[in-house]
Amino acid sequence: MEQVRTARVALSGVAEPGNLALWRRVSSYGPVAVLEGLVAQGAAGAPSLFATGDAAESIDPGRRAAESLALTQRLGARVVIPEDDEWPAQLDDLLKICGKGGGDPVDRDAAPPLCLWVRGQQRLDEALARSVAVVGARAASGYGGHVAREIGYGLADAGWFVVSGGAFGIDAHAHRGALAAGGGTAAVLACGVERAYPLAHANLFDQITEQGLLVSEWAPGADPFRHRFLIRNRVIAAATVGTVLVEAGARSGARQTLRRARELGRRQLVVPGPVTSAMSVGNHEELRQPYDPPARLVTGVAQILEEVGRIGSDLAPPVRGPDQPRDRLGTTERRLVEALRRRAPLTAEQAAARAGVPLADAVRILPVLVLSGHAERHGDGFVAARRPGGAGSPAGA
Amino acid sequence: MEQVRTARVALSGVAEPGNLALWRRVSSYGPVAVLEGLVAQGAAGAPSLFATGDAAESIDPGRRAAESLALTQRLGARVVIPEDDEWPAQLDDLLKICGKGGGDPVDRDAAPPLCLWVRGQQRLDEALARSVAVVGARAASGYGGHVAREIGYGLADAGWFVVSGGAFGIDAHAHRGALAAGGGTAAVLACGVERAYPLAHANLFDQITEQGLLVSEWAPGADPFRHRFLIRNRVIAAATVGTVLVEAGARSGARQTLRRARELGRRQLVVPGPVTSAMSVGNHEELRQPYDPPARLVTGVAQILEEVGRIGSDLAPPVRGPDQPRDRLGTTERRLVEALRRRAPLTAEQAAARAGVPLADAVRILPVLVLSGHAERHGDGFVAARRPGGAGSPAGA
Repeated sequence: MEQVRTARVALSGVAEPGNLALWRRVSSYGPVAVLEGLVAQGAAGAPSLFATGDAAESIDPGRRAAESLALTQRLGARVVIPEDDEWPAQLDDLLKICGKGGGDPVDRDAAPPLCLWVRGQQRLDEALARSVAVVGARAASGYGGHVAREIGYGLADAGWFVVSGGAFGIDAHAHRGALAAGGGTAAVLACGVERAYPLAHANLFDQITEQGLLVSEWAPGADPFRHRFLIRNRVIAAATVGTVLVEAGARSGARQTLRRARELGRRQLVVPGPVTSAMSVGNHEELRQPYDPPARLVTGVAQILEEVGRIGSDLAPPVRGPDQPRDRLGTTERRLVEALRRRAPLTAEQAAARAGVPLADAVRILPVLVLSGHAERHGDGFVAARRPGGAGSPAGA
Repeated sequence: MEQVRTARVALSGVAEPGNLALWRRVSSYGPVAVLEGLVAQGAAGAPSLFATGDAAESIDPGRRAAESLALTQRLGARVVIPEDDEWPAQLDDLLKICGKGGGDPVDRDAAPPLCLWVRGQQRLDEALARSVAVVGARAASGYGGHVAREIGYGLADAGWFVVSGGAFGIDAHAHRGALAAGGGTAAVLACGVERAYPLAHANLFDQITEQGLLVSEWAPGADPFRHRFLIRNRVIAAATVGTVLVEAGARSGARQTLRRARELGRRQLVVPGPVTSAMSVGNHEELRQPYDPPARLVTGVAQILEEVGRIGSDLAPPVRGPDQPRDRLGTTERRLVEALRRRAPLTAEQAAARAGVPLADAVRILPVLVLSGHAERHGDGFVAARRPGGAGSPAGA
């Protein structure tokens, strides 16, 4: 087993994560055999295994992997491989989407990770089994940050694991919300799990390590190069039941995570925002696209839970305004109540004319409204009751 | 013709507008014959024709209608009837939706108007031929007011007529936007066209009369009773190519106008807003409903024009961020540019490793990037050009 782990760590340096050809070879022949074959072929067989920028041809990849594993252990982290019980099997769904989405290598090479570096106490599979991705722009607005925190808090409070990146903005707000609820949250990084990138998140990552998990496909020491964020996004989408896009500009990389979720058959949930905000332009574009299935508009945690939860167990209450006493009245009854005035009494004829209902109905119903407390008799006429029927003054709708 | 007009005015007092039974009788036998029949039957045949709350049995409905027409003329208004050239024929579509939507009389009685009171110079049919309804809550937020004004302005600026109610909030903002653009706008009222309701809109209605139209199904003197706003909404929906819902609370009557638009096959367009705003709850609910067809999210005038305009003539430009010099690069090229640093030069091997691309590609492409101005040679290595390639520092996506 440790030979397999070492081989997978070594192979993770051969190509950027997601490389489909390498994943297939590993899947067919096993990591140990593939590594041995590449070493036997030398630099010609696996150029980037040896091209680290140093005069690296002389370094034995097996020894380098063993050193990386030892470093991992010293950092309080571990390497989780598909052969482990805690491997999240849903990541294998990534095989379905390789090549979807266009000619970009990132789209072709969307294979599952060869292994994952993990910091934190919880089992990776258990944490991710009931998890939701909350993603969005680094340059979040105050509105977006507030919404991300609320969603992170609400998901954690309902027993869901939050998954996001480690960036400023929406990522950080989602994590902080989950942490504030005392729940679990996972930051999937585009660099080594020992590395605080951005530096200002050192404390946040420490908290996540204590309450949740730091996860990466890259070995300790790896840099967060720009293209790695797009490679990483497929893991966020595949690990979770659904992805919530909180705020995204027109070109935000978070939209790619949402696309991955759609391709993987995960729920794609989008929070709307002010049309006057550049940080919601990407959200609204996603909601306007004729995807099959289309992205779903969500306004808060209740609706997110309804989408990701089992039907019936996490059903959101329908949104409606406060009950009014008149709600229980039929239409004719309501019209009559609204036609009545607070002071000047109306005869049944007058009330019928104002309400636009037949006189016979008014004659029959007005006494009933008196009994139900919506109207009061006043001489030969009727006035609106102070409560609970309310006023009959003109009012728009 | 004037006999027909007088008869229609008289009949408009028999029942609230939209009454299907009355409309059918008028359609079958003509307004003059129907009125004569009702008068011959007396109060038993048409109770509300005579029930005005006064001892009104003695008043001849024909004489009353003639008086109403004379008053209309004194007010600078006119009565437009289906027999006139300027009658907007699209209102007849209302026959399709009678009874749709539930057991409420407002749903059953959605017949076309028997006649319309109009103030303003323009021909009613021409004004409404190219019109869009802009509706929403009275208690609009600052955001909603801003958006309604922008939409009203933009529609008028593009040569479209704006249609709304006469209420505070979204209605007024939409009209003011259209007026500011020097365009036309129509306020469809739930009371007589001579009446400033709300009173604070007296000046606004004067401006609308000059630049656009005040329209009502009710004769001068009619009060804006609460139920009349819901009756009126069907005219706003039917008169226009589509309805834009700008802001609506959970229980806003403006949602009913949108439903009418859907039932009539008109475009149903909804502006999203902050999920933290109670005034956008109705909008988001509309966007979440599985209508067939679903309501369409729009973020501004360009997208509204795309929906209501002929395809090709009013097509909205796709939303995207500003162009960046890197956009024109292929993926491998872009990765290499992003891997380079501004000061410390990298060898081709180092750049290949940082970019995660094959060394052979880096050796081939880096000189091309120097020629295109994205990179610069520096001794044996390469650095990022100051412009236009930008920096290669780590950055999230």
